[in-house]
Amino acid sequence: MLVVELIRKIRDKEEVSEKDIQDFIKAVTAKEVPDYQVTAWLMAVYFQGLTPALRGALTLAMRDSGKVINWDGVPGRKVDKHSTGGVGDKISIPLAPLVAACGVKVPMVSGRGLGHTGGTLDKLESIPGFRVDIEPDIFKKQTNELGLCLAGQTKDIAPADKKLYALRDVTGTVESIDLISASIMSKKLSEGIDGLVLDVKVGSGAFMKTLPDARALATSLIQIGEHAGVSVRALLTSMEQPLGVMVGNALEIRESIDILKGGGPADSRELTVELGAEMLVLGHVAKDAAEGRAKIEKAMADGSGVEVMRKVIAAQSGDPRVLDNPDLLPTAKHIGEFVAPVSGVITAIDTTGVGMAGVKLGGGRAKAEDTIDPAVGFEIKAKLGQKVNKGEPLALVHYNNEAQINAARDTFLAAYTIEEVPEFKAPQLVLERLSSKN
Amino acid sequence: MLVVELIRKIRDKEEVSEKDIQDFIKAVTAKEVPDYQVTAWLMAVYFQGLTPALRGALTLAMRDSGKVINWDGVPGRKVDKHSTGGVGDKISIPLAPLVAACGVKVPMVSGRGLGHTGGTLDKLESIPGFRVDIEPDIFKKQTNELGLCLAGQTKDIAPADKKLYALRDVTGTVESIDLISASIMSKKLSEGIDGLVLDVKVGSGAFMKTLPDARALATSLIQIGEHAGVSVRALLTSMEQPLGVMVGNALEIRESIDILKGGGPADSRELTVELGAEMLVLGHVAKDAAEGRAKIEKAMADGSGVEVMRKVIAAQSGDPRVLDNPDLLPTAKHIGEFVAPVSGVITAIDTTGVGMAGVKLGGGRAKAEDTIDPAVGFEIKAKLGQKVNKGEPLALVHYNNEAQINAARDTFLAAYTIEEVPEFKAPQLVLERLSSKN
Repeated sequence: MLVVELIRKIRDKEEVSEKDIQDFIKAVTAKEVPDYQVTAWLMAVYFQGLTPALRGALTLAMRDSGKVINWDGVPGRKVDKHSTGGVGDKISIPLAPLVAACGVKVPMVSGRGLGHTGGTLDKLESIPGFRVDIEPDIFKKQTNELGLCLAGQTKDIAPADKKLYALRDVTGTVESIDLISASIMSKKLSEGIDGLVLDVKVGSGAFMKTLPDARALATSLIQIGEHAGVSVRALLTSMEQPLGVMVGNALEIRESIDILKGGGPADSRELTVELGAEMLVLGHVAKDAAEGRAKIEKAMADGSGVEVMRKVIAAQSGDPRVLDNPDLLPTAKHIGEFVAPVSGVITAIDTTGVGMAGVKLGGGRAKAEDTIDPAVGFEIKAKLGQKVNKGEPLALVHYNNEAQINAARDTFLAAYTIEEVPEFKAPQLVLERLSSKN
Repeated sequence: MLVVELIRKIRDKEEVSEKDIQDFIKAVTAKEVPDYQVTAWLMAVYFQGLTPALRGALTLAMRDSGKVINWDGVPGRKVDKHSTGGVGDKISIPLAPLVAACGVKVPMVSGRGLGHTGGTLDKLESIPGFRVDIEPDIFKKQTNELGLCLAGQTKDIAPADKKLYALRDVTGTVESIDLISASIMSKKLSEGIDGLVLDVKVGSGAFMKTLPDARALATSLIQIGEHAGVSVRALLTSMEQPLGVMVGNALEIRESIDILKGGGPADSRELTVELGAEMLVLGHVAKDAAEGRAKIEKAMADGSGVEVMRKVIAAQSGDPRVLDNPDLLPTAKHIGEFVAPVSGVITAIDTTGVGMAGVKLGGGRAKAEDTIDPAVGFEIKAKLGQKVNKGEPLALVHYNNEAQINAARDTFLAAYTIEEVPEFKAPQLVLERLSSKN
């Protein structure tokens, strides 16, 4: 079919075959379609959506534009986790070794931070020496031997997604559930996994601000999993405030180590257990979530999670001694405070604002080519529903120079709503669970 | 404003200023906006539309991307006519000299045929020697002296429209009332006219298939006229069958000459009078349509229209003797017939199909770079509501070789619906009249 004809049919919601979409993505990947047609197509998809079958076909075509890991000769179920992104969301880092310690293989490919959300790769790289650029055969070998590899995306993975994403970014076509789903799943399916657990964030710090929107995204991701024959479970979790207490790369590694050992803040530890339990079920090492939870908690308590992480850090050229002595991580020169400007109860935290304050502090990226300071960040001292007195710290601020803390202050403080109310109950963490039929 | 932000605001129907649109078109014209952003913007406009004010701003920005004719020193009102395109629509050719003969200046810039619709320039060029590439100062001088110049668009006219149209054509964004209106009006307003009469076609041979769609387009065009301070009148006219009897370039010049002299088929003569009357009103030489009609009919009867055309043809290097002896026009070698396959009453003519049959005959263009045979065409012998017997001619076919007539036959015959019904009444020609407030 002529590309202009495909665009017109998508525009008019006329029937299009899966093959039409496959041919289109093949032609896009081969650079046979001019960008100006691709972006018109993207905008038509933004407005008209795709059927589940076409969304699945799009995703598989995007996956197949690059390499898919072949796990021949590597026994056991491969299960990964993906979060749609939030602030203080370091869960992948303690989660992956705990799941691997329970006998599930975790071939985890992560991304970098951009805007208000951090990235797992940036956090891992704050471990001295740690490398995330892993050759495909090493990735496979390490996942087989240690149960876990923590890597960045290679250029062979879903090049059609890279192309489409770059165009979406400059044409107002990012915010499409179809395109978001296809982008996420094409990369995850390139890992050749059997199961995927999704943490779909909802709230002020999330891409999806409302439960219905998050549910629509989770449903779309799950349908793609079904189309591809991969089992998917999704937790919709609250992102109305930062997760845990640490926000910042090295600081989040500190919290991750605490969680890995069964400590850390209640919310981030709980979410690690919940997501881990689902991964164990999909990995066929737990019959249900309850058994999964028990196994994750045991891996925390008996140190087996830490031992996997120790080997993974060592294998990836990092210094595993950080697990015993977190002060070996980059540490900021100064610790300051952002204090409550009034007394009252914290009734709202614009979590995107907290993330953007972290970017201004130097711990995140406004644009992809920015460099980050791994040591800086916030240690949140006051969360939703908490009473604070004027002058009490809302957060400790780890910073290396005055310019950093000054740049972040207004944005951080503007994110907090403190009101004179008798009480305020924070939303629960896990809001909903969804599961694929397979 | 960043282009991506403008796209997003159009996408979300958020407020955008007229200046934002002006800046965008300036940047597009200066090639500062990549095509992939322009096409995403076009598709967003396709789906969300523009407010009348923004549509007006877009049109003026497109007009101002090129030259606008300055009529300083040329007295009198300048009024043009535009048709949205149909089959057998040669009205501009007799209309323009008749209006000029009544004392209104007609600076007419026309286009070429593409697809099922013919183009005024192609028809004019079937007059031996006639040239339509007129330098701007000659255009102005001739309009002043003869009251009429019949020219093609120069590359200085609305270059932003050329750019946008080329991108719309390959991205499924042609069929947008906002973009169609801005395209038409940016070119017409470049003529620096005081008034414009629109013939908005409705039906099987028109771009707008239904009265509500045609009305929406007419309203949009009129609003742009109001925004630009140009008086606009629109007639919505039926295009459920070819207009007049001749379809084909030289053949339509023959019919035009007949109309110019007060003859020709009833429908095409009537439409010439009706559109001419409106032009005279906008040209301030008739107080109302009734007076306008009388003046046009007088210009037909007294030969003053023919005399204007004689001078215009001579001035534009053509052979004015065609007005007295139409056999000097290109003439096809053969005349064949397409006959009724059954007996009955003609209840429908897929007029686009008739136009496409003309393209297959060689008289039109499937793509812009095709060459045309000016001599070929149809002489329609049976119109809506007419009774025909099996074997009677539906049309005479003027052709130069067997391949031409054979290529056109099936398409032409498929366009006719002939049914056994007692009677069928063709729709009236002028369906509705709309007028700007100014």
